Amino acid sequence: MQFELTQDYINQLKVAVAERDDYFIQGRMEELHVQDIAPILIELDDEESYYLFKGLDFETGAQVLREIDPDYRKHFVKQLSIDELADYIEYQESDDAADIINEQPVKTGEEIIALLEDREKAGFIRDLLHYDEDCAGGLMAKELIKANINWNVKQCIEEIRRQSRNVEQIYSIYVIDNSNKLLGRVSVKRILLAEDETLIADIYESEIISVESYRDAQEVAEVMRKYDLEVIPVVNVQGKLLGRITIDDIVDVITEKAEEDIQMMAGISGSTDEDDSIWAQSKSRLPWLIIGMLGGILGARFIGLFENFITLVPTMAFFIPLITATGGNVGIQSSSVIVQDLARDSGPSSFTMGRFFKGFIVAVVNGVAIAGIVLLFNTVLGEEMKQTIVVSVALFSVVILASFTGTMTPLILEKVGVNPALAAGPFITTANDLLGLAIYFTVAHYLYLI
Amino acid sequence: MQFELTQDYINQLKVAVAERDDYFIQGRMEELHVQDIAPILIELDDEESYYLFKGLDFETGAQVLREIDPDYRKHFVKQLSIDELADYIEYQESDDAADIINEQPVKTGEEIIALLEDREKAGFIRDLLHYDEDCAGGLMAKELIKANINWNVKQCIEEIRRQSRNVEQIYSIYVIDNSNKLLGRVSVKRILLAEDETLIADIYESEIISVESYRDAQEVAEVMRKYDLEVIPVVNVQGKLLGRITIDDIVDVITEKAEEDIQMMAGISGSTDEDDSIWAQSKSRLPWLIIGMLGGILGARFIGLFENFITLVPTMAFFIPLITATGGNVGIQSSSVIVQDLARDSGPSSFTMGRFFKGFIVAVVNGVAIAGIVLLFNTVLGEEMKQTIVVSVALFSVVILASFTGTMTPLILEKVGVNPALAAGPFITTANDLLGLAIYFTVAHYLYLI
Repeated sequence: MQFELTQDYINQLKVAVAERDDYFIQGRMEELHVQDIAPILIELDDEESYYLFKGLDFETGAQVLREIDPDYRKHFVKQLSIDELADYIEYQESDDAADIINEQPVKTGEEIIALLEDREKAGFIRDLLHYDEDCAGGLMAKELIKANINWNVKQCIEEIRRQSRNVEQIYSIYVIDNSNKLLGRVSVKRILLAEDETLIADIYESEIISVESYRDAQEVAEVMRKYDLEVIPVVNVQGKLLGRITIDDIVDVITEKAEEDIQMMAGISGSTDEDDSIWAQSKSRLPWLIIGMLGGILGARFIGLFENFITLVPTMAFFIPLITATGGNVGIQSSSVIVQDLARDSGPSSFTMGRFFKGFIVAVVNGVAIAGIVLLFNTVLGEEMKQTIVVSVALFSVVILASFTGTMTPLILEKVGVNPALAAGPFITTANDLLGLAIYFTVAHYLYLI
Repeated sequence: MQFELTQDYINQLKVAVAERDDYFIQGRMEELHVQDIAPILIELDDEESYYLFKGLDFETGAQVLREIDPDYRKHFVKQLSIDELADYIEYQESDDAADIINEQPVKTGEEIIALLEDREKAGFIRDLLHYDEDCAGGLMAKELIKANINWNVKQCIEEIRRQSRNVEQIYSIYVIDNSNKLLGRVSVKRILLAEDETLIADIYESEIISVESYRDAQEVAEVMRKYDLEVIPVVNVQGKLLGRITIDDIVDVITEKAEEDIQMMAGISGSTDEDDSIWAQSKSRLPWLIIGMLGGILGARFIGLFENFITLVPTMAFFIPLITATGGNVGIQSSSVIVQDLARDSGPSSFTMGRFFKGFIVAVVNGVAIAGIVLLFNTVLGEEMKQTIVVSVALFSVVILASFTGTMTPLILEKVGVNPALAAGPFITTANDLLGLAIYFTVAHYLYLI
């Protein structure tokens, strides 16, 4: 079903490139989709990838350029002259072109735009350059079919014919008034089945969901997911039609957000992958390890206060990992549920007192279960009774309190505008390690004094 | 941009329902999209939600039924008679209809299908019932436009006209041969711009990506994401066209998979949310807490072996949380990177010896950094020298080994067919707690003996 890129395949291509075996290369490339060609380039060295790329026709090359991983693309396009790059960009849609131009130095970008023969496209790209990549404007393409509300179907088909070179796929035909204000949409099916003289005004749907250009990419994703849209028109604050965003770009936004959240939960900052340099990978992980380490040092100082106690009752030390691990596990469980709730679109019933109370009951149930099992285990294993009680009481308290901090931390982070997923990672385990130790030794202090 | 459901809004509706104020209710419902109406029903009591729902026209009602959360839907449809349910299903696409019928007892489902006036739809639904919901067949709808390769454009438009009642939105027109084998596609744009007499054979694209009906939903999602498809045709093993899957359903698959992975990493099994019962929530969390607890008990037994050692050198106890926390953090970092790599479509360069070596170097860099900082801290804070060296050497070893187990565990799980995300949660922290303790006490044992 899917093309599987193997080392053998790459070696064959490398040999073919070395031998300038264009017949073999063309044959292989014609079998592939552009999404399969892009990753091949990364596996070749510069001279080889350039040769392979230049063997593609401009249209395919333009699409391959669109699909290449942006980090690698910045490096790859350095091999192309400004004229060459402009030739490919001529075949791209405005959003993809703007992405590539944004990766270039400003001067290079301006030169490329100046070289474009399609002046409409040049204007489109220039419009898109000033949008932030994480907002609706940064995701949209300018190419779309729009029909004036006063037109008839025949005029609309003429417009489609005129635009058909620019627009790869028609999703919807947007209906606008004389001032370019978005009024609604009409489906291609409707146009196809209507008479030439039918007025657009009579067949268009006025109910249409659109987003303003300044909206955050996550918001756009949420709207498109919720309303099952494959394309959404983008308007400015006056409601004038600016462009449209297709679902494929939004799928990437959703996937990247999920990966980012998982990385954040795992204590890895930024979006690094295994292709990044050792230093970049280390830099993305070390801060979180250091936070954990500082927590550990603080924990050591704290336990140090009880040095004499431990000398007298060394069994106290045995259960330290049990206490801290339980606190960490409960904290992560509670916080991740809240993080997901915050990420989802929730009704008014979220975070009511009732929910909090329910969370509290779940914590009590789990706390009783864990503390009870440990009590049983320790009794069976013949641990000293007082120590057994201290551990169980501490465990129960840790489960309740870790559940509380795990619930509150993401809510507070969300309130102050920080990604709440941050709370579901090393942050919460470190906090709960300290919390657990404090509870454990406090409980022990009181119980052993009795 | 989005409708925000508030408690006030719900209260107003409740009053209107109590007063049978149909004018108010209709007015409110007409302003809303079906995706906004569905969550309202959950907030009302049974009698209220039934009244509100029955006030909607059949087409809107059918769409609302599609959008309702399946858990609640099972409960909600019990209020509808079989005849009523059939009336709504008449307005649904086959995939949504099959989902609802699958939620009913087999006999009820059969009765509903028997009641449908649209016999083609009844056949479609029956075809879909036997597919597993997690495979391509379970996601597809049967409604689509297909054109025989021997037709001309006029015949194709006739077919679109005939099917237009069934098909909400035309994505592509699939081209088939006389035996229903999928040959390619032709875009609506092409049909619109072609002459009536043009042959489909002359304008269709033969390059088309399809999936077999038995393919896993995750695979379909990966293909659609990779190739930027908004719809994909589904074929049987002989390549005959069975149906099509639209991207909106795949967006849900992607979102759910991400949520599932995050839950697994957080040590929550199954897909529970805060609406579930206390028992269900507890049941999804408790197993993981118990695994952590057993690890903790084992850890306690292990440390117990060194009881005399701790009595002599109580500072050994101080650094237990630091060691276990660092092992856990490093393990989660390493495993989550591998989990994401496995989830993504990776080229041949994944998991080569080169990658492993790079991961090792990253671990060495981070290990040296963490051990170094702790060495510095402990020296400045005036910890005893031998203890300081033990902690730093153990920390370094823990970082290296936790990084190794974090890398290997998901790879092994993937090999034996278990979701590797399992490895990025409590599983790996528990293992690393024990590993950390073993290293710490072994190092101490050798260093203090010297």
